[in-house]
Amino acid sequence: MTLRPTPADKFSFGLWTVGWQARDPFGDATRAALDPVEAVHRLAELGAYGITFHDDDLIPFGADAATRDQHVARFRTALDETGLVVPMVTTNLFTHPVFKDGGFTSNDRDVRRYALRKVLRNVDLAAELGARTFVMWGGREGAEYDVAKDIRAALDRYREAVDLLTQYVVDAGYDLRFAIEPKPNEPRGDILLPTVGHALAFINELAHPELVGLNPEVGHEQMAGLNYAHGIAQALWHGKLFHLDLNGQRGIKYDQDLVFGHGDLLNAFALVDLLENGGPGGGPAYDGPRHFDYKPSRTEDFAGVWASAEANMRTYLLLKERAAAFRADPEVAEALAVSKVAELATPTLAAGESCADLLADRSAFEDFDVDAVAARGFGFVRLNQLAVEHLFGAR
Amino acid sequence: MTLRPTPADKFSFGLWTVGWQARDPFGDATRAALDPVEAVHRLAELGAYGITFHDDDLIPFGADAATRDQHVARFRTALDETGLVVPMVTTNLFTHPVFKDGGFTSNDRDVRRYALRKVLRNVDLAAELGARTFVMWGGREGAEYDVAKDIRAALDRYREAVDLLTQYVVDAGYDLRFAIEPKPNEPRGDILLPTVGHALAFINELAHPELVGLNPEVGHEQMAGLNYAHGIAQALWHGKLFHLDLNGQRGIKYDQDLVFGHGDLLNAFALVDLLENGGPGGGPAYDGPRHFDYKPSRTEDFAGVWASAEANMRTYLLLKERAAAFRADPEVAEALAVSKVAELATPTLAAGESCADLLADRSAFEDFDVDAVAARGFGFVRLNQLAVEHLFGAR
Amino acid sequence: MTLRPTPADKFSFGLWTVGWQARDPFGDATRAALDPVEAVHRLAELGAYGITFHDDDLIPFGADAATRDQHVARFRTALDETGLVVPMVTTNLFTHPVFKDGGFTSNDRDVRRYALRKVLRNVDLAAELGARTFVMWGGREGAEYDVAKDIRAALDRYREAVDLLTQYVVDAGYDLRFAIEPKPNEPRGDILLPTVGHALAFINELAHPELVGLNPEVGHEQMAGLNYAHGIAQALWHGKLFHLDLNGQRGIKYDQDLVFGHGDLLNAFALVDLLENGGPGGGPAYDGPRHFDYKPSRTEDFAGVWASAEANMRTYLLLKERAAAFRADPEVAEALAVSKVAELATPTLAAGESCADLLADRSAFEDFDVDAVAARGFGFVRLNQLAVEHLFGAR
Amino acid sequence: MTLRPTPADKFSFGLWTVGWQARDPFGDATRAALDPVEAVHRLAELGAYGITFHDDDLIPFGADAATRDQHVARFRTALDETGLVVPMVTTNLFTHPVFKDGGFTSNDRDVRRYALRKVLRNVDLAAELGARTFVMWGGREGAEYDVAKDIRAALDRYREAVDLLTQYVVDAGYDLRFAIEPKPNEPRGDILLPTVGHALAFINELAHPELVGLNPEVGHEQMAGLNYAHGIAQALWHGKLFHLDLNGQRGIKYDQDLVFGHGDLLNAFALVDLLENGGPGGGPAYDGPRHFDYKPSRTEDFAGVWASAEANMRTYLLLKERAAAFRADPEVAEALAVSKVAELATPTLAAGESCADLLADRSAFEDFDVDAVAARGFGFVRLNQLAVEHLFGAR
Repeated sequence: MTLRPTPADKFSFGLWTVGWQARDPFGDATRAALDPVEAVHRLAELGAYGITFHDDDLIPFGADAATRDQHVARFRTALDETGLVVPMVTTNLFTHPVFKDGGFTSNDRDVRRYALRKVLRNVDLAAELGARTFVMWGGREGAEYDVAKDIRAALDRYREAVDLLTQYVVDAGYDLRFAIEPKPNEPRGDILLPTVGHALAFINELAHPELVGLNPEVGHEQMAGLNYAHGIAQALWHGKLFHLDLNGQRGIKYDQDLVFGHGDLLNAFALVDLLENGGPGGGPAYDGPRHFDYKPSRTEDFAGVWASAEANMRTYLLLKERAAAFRADPEVAEALAVSKVAELATPTLAAGESCADLLADRSAFEDFDVDAVAARGFGFVRLNQLAVEHLFGAR
Repeated sequence: MTLRPTPADKFSFGLWTVGWQARDPFGDATRAALDPVEAVHRLAELGAYGITFHDDDLIPFGADAATRDQHVARFRTALDETGLVVPMVTTNLFTHPVFKDGGFTSNDRDVRRYALRKVLRNVDLAAELGARTFVMWGGREGAEYDVAKDIRAALDRYREAVDLLTQYVVDAGYDLRFAIEPKPNEPRGDILLPTVGHALAFINELAHPELVGLNPEVGHEQMAGLNYAHGIAQALWHGKLFHLDLNGQRGIKYDQDLVFGHGDLLNAFALVDLLENGGPGGGPAYDGPRHFDYKPSRTEDFAGVWASAEANMRTYLLLKERAAAFRADPEVAEALAVSKVAELATPTLAAGESCADLLADRSAFEDFDVDAVAARGFGFVRLNQLAVEHLFGAR
Repeated sequence: MTLRPTPADKFSFGLWTVGWQARDPFGDATRAALDPVEAVHRLAELGAYGITFHDDDLIPFGADAATRDQHVARFRTALDETGLVVPMVTTNLFTHPVFKDGGFTSNDRDVRRYALRKVLRNVDLAAELGARTFVMWGGREGAEYDVAKDIRAALDRYREAVDLLTQYVVDAGYDLRFAIEPKPNEPRGDILLPTVGHALAFINELAHPELVGLNPEVGHEQMAGLNYAHGIAQALWHGKLFHLDLNGQRGIKYDQDLVFGHGDLLNAFALVDLLENGGPGGGPAYDGPRHFDYKPSRTEDFAGVWASAEANMRTYLLLKERAAAFRADPEVAEALAVSKVAELATPTLAAGESCADLLADRSAFEDFDVDAVAARGFGFVRLNQLAVEHLFGAR
Repeated sequence: MTLRPTPADKFSFGLWTVGWQARDPFGDATRAALDPVEAVHRLAELGAYGITFHDDDLIPFGADAATRDQHVARFRTALDETGLVVPMVTTNLFTHPVFKDGGFTSNDRDVRRYALRKVLRNVDLAAELGARTFVMWGGREGAEYDVAKDIRAALDRYREAVDLLTQYVVDAGYDLRFAIEPKPNEPRGDILLPTVGHALAFINELAHPELVGLNPEVGHEQMAGLNYAHGIAQALWHGKLFHLDLNGQRGIKYDQDLVFGHGDLLNAFALVDLLENGGPGGGPAYDGPRHFDYKPSRTEDFAGVWASAEANMRTYLLLKERAAAFRADPEVAEALAVSKVAELATPTLAAGESCADLLADRSAFEDFDVDAVAARGFGFVRLNQLAVEHLFGAR
């Protein structure tokens, strides 16, 4: 196989990833600012398909209209020159001190109004650039102190904001959907909608739930000790996997944003297998961008930045290849059968069987040989070992 | 104040709590079995209001009908003698080896059918004993190995099971609702519906969502590093706090099931404040049982068991008293105002204001003095310190 | 009691705490720089005893000699005016990009030499200002990638650095000891000497172990899920508690640096009880500064900064008072006896008893009634509940 | 390569691993007891080299002398028949209720004396069977409640116990060393000597530190979020890696004891690389048994048990092969040079250079171009990606 990505692989990167200047809570920037135009060209050369951004990544916060237009125009030119697309846009409601208690859910109503305006303006830009997904990471929507935030009121305000935005998109006729990105904590002590589950539940209370889905990030779910592949599967089950953020995290700690695969590699294997082979007939279960939201480590210079960008894509392609081989291996097929993995797709009740029928089926309970069934082995460890050996490329 | 609980406090305990024999993954039982009848009498003496159980706590697994009836009859007599009620019943789908890969979502369809039968039988008993809530903790519904479980199929089967059960209750005319109890892991590597959020989302896909809510447990959410009071607030926001499990946990580790308050005490304060003072007009936000799902430590004899049962209730009553004083303190009221906690309940848009109006409001964006607003302090630390000092009883 | 601190309470603060400008990984500064001279005066007014600093907190990085002298002179004047002392000084080997792979253990030898020079210069300043403790937090000494750091070589270099520094202090005749501050991660993926234990072990390999001890921080140990009071007890046991950093952390997540007590309040109670009442005859087990290394939340203005500084001290004083009452309560004494807490201080072998004697004692094994002893309850839950109720001020 | 293990690979297993009956905190045993003699024969067939045990794994707790001798004799015969050796023995001080508050550090002195006797007896058996390492996992030495355990007294008693045991071994002339196995929690809320570091520090206070080292377990360190390969490196640095326990863990949660490699696979790669290639000249850094302390999942029958045993060894051999290829790859050598990994082995001071010399070296500070050096990139991400691709077998 080749590990050279092409636009058909649909790899996209945030401007803020390769452009991260590597400022962290204990240290100053180690890299100069990166011109967005250069980012576009370099990513295109590496085989990427798309680029995404927060408003403030592209246009300096507080820029006047002329400056703003100039930044957008230069960026569009670069897109045109390279063929890169902008599949997703998002808004920065976290860097400026005004958002220190959040944007949509700041206790300060003035801030909330300002936040809505900042997002509305950016929605227009997203539509203008042809983005189909508008991500909302509410990283500052939260609290450090339980008594300082009325969580139910905060959820009311969150809903108010999203309802206003979806209605705006409907009224404007934009072909744009929203994707909430959950995170459990950091930079707030506890963030609202902390996991895939909480965000999925929230969506059901919205005025336009059909326009709102998820953008789950590998590291964010893993910061809560949750299984990312499971979270993605549940999002798919709800029809809500609108976008996703790939990166690497080594356990429950601060948000690391490592290269995809440089964290829990086995879970990354399961994820790519799900995305690529989990759909109907074994095809892709998700056809959107494979978006990398990672940070080139603070130890790296720009050579390291581009090497890290490439590393994300190579790892994905390797996992895709390994997952394909796993699915094609007859011994794996046999092991899956022993483990009854496919049997779970068979309804528990037979076609047409009623609850009364089940209650009348003595074989299901009264005559059920519970100890004999209990003694059946599932063969899960062997199956997992086959996955591990495929990951190793050892089969 | 008095720390003597009365049935009006609505404290309830699982039979499996005071009856836990203290077997753990590395050790044998340190206590003898406790007769359920004795549990009823002792808890009643301590001032409890209710008692709850898994089928197998009351009736030995596999007991014949006569034995079963005898156990139920003895238990009812004890209830009648003491006035204790049974507000909740639940089913054990985790102890017997047959459930080693789950009940509703075992890869083995025979097991799934058996699990449904076991639950249906217990639903009848719950209704017979007047329980209003039927808890479902799917502790074995999960996996250790990502390739061994089709998560979307598992969610299909979970839904199939719950839909069957709710329809059964509707058809039978039982006044009974179901409450899902999330948990992230243990005994499985990853459990389905791992948090309050995931379970809330799942409910929305059910045939009878109105009959299904949540039973969140303190320690389970905290095992994912999540804020329990936040989770309860979101469950209330969705109208889904059907029941709850109070206990203590000291951080992200194995499930500890300590006495309520013997873990994150500040979060327990926020929780009780929410439950008791978070409702309309400052009254209770939840009026169901205050149910303790804890384990008397393995180091304790029966004297320690009863002391621990009492400790749960005393801590709750102390927190309730402290939270009331906190809410009544004028300095707290002033600090809450400084922190704009109530302002979050004010909609971001004015009454009748449209999105167009907001866009036309120059004060919200064009003329917004972002730096001036950013400079406003929220006073959250002082407010939290007031809560801490009230918890200390120092104000 | 009074909650007004006095210098006799030995409370000290880092200049970087009240002076933190509240820049975090996702946000810009929310507060202006604080003049160190103002910090000294304000802390003195609040009743503090000491102030500590990193070189770069007091003297801008790269300042020339004249500027440097001027900053030091102004600071000394403020100290003289207020009576505040400088019990501890430390060096910043983490903010400047040159330290991106560490100071003492950077893979780049040039950086290591520079780091040593920066520290040596600061050791002179520490001695000049009368500090008795020189803290070393090696926050950048670590790695994100296992293959990129030779850990044993890194420990060699760490030892080389500390040996050089201790010898320098010996040769200079300074009355100064070093204190290592462990941390498991952040800003590096994994930090060397990640816990109290690892640092204690390291010290034993040094040329002057007697000059090196620990400066454990509440949040750092809790970021590894470890019990801070246990860690302090082990440090005391080794005679290595040279200094300590008090703050608050809510579980395993990013480094929060909350106010002391605004995290795990029960563990803070145990800690203060140990520090104040754990010494010989029930007196203090530690007589050094009670140093707060916290960050006023990013939501706060300067009023909030000073309120938060005060909150640290008030919480400590409240805990001290509650711990004293706990120790004085006869029911606690009785409960401690039931729990045999003091019996653990009795050697397992009797005075003069040999191993042979133990082997000959049939009562210890052959005639030991293992089941009878196993049945004894320890009464730990009741004892803990007494502590909880004392914390509440409810007894 | 072949993935068939041979005794030269020095793979060993605990009797309690393949023999685990799969009882967990929420479930009954799913497998029958395994005859130790069968375990010996099956492991030998699979290519293992050694078998280890707790006293109670081989000889039922409380067995009389004749029964005991019979069990030992049968076991020895199996060893003789298969050539399997017993490199390590350990004592069970955790299953019986008598140890509910610990063995060496129970608050109850009677229990402590009994524990010592149980261990002494087993030391004799270890010596008799030719074991060279005696592991001490103090899983019950700890506490749930901070006020219930005097940690310093507990460390005194721990030391008393280990000093007695080492003296016993010296006096008996046994060729046996002790290895402490740290664990942060579970089954106790907090366990004494929770990490590799704490245990290393403790050893320095012993009467015979040369006879005591470590037996670090993958999952135990990872339960504290610590880097296992780093911990092993520090243990090697102190000369204290006497033995080790290989298994898999998926993050900070309950103790999973998965198959080696079925957890953090990248860290497992680094570990095997360190063990196999980290010694002088690139040879092994550790030559003791590669001991697997894992649990075949509860879902498995005996076929699954043996498949899982094999999986541990195959994964180790694959990692060994991949690590060898990584070390042999010229591009890796070049990348390591760019990252200056080997430069860390060069002392920071030149040969013969004094502190005064360093202070006089203006190039190290006064003339040091800090910004130029800061701009150097370390190339760590590229290096890590090379490791990842070697793990994939993709180079």
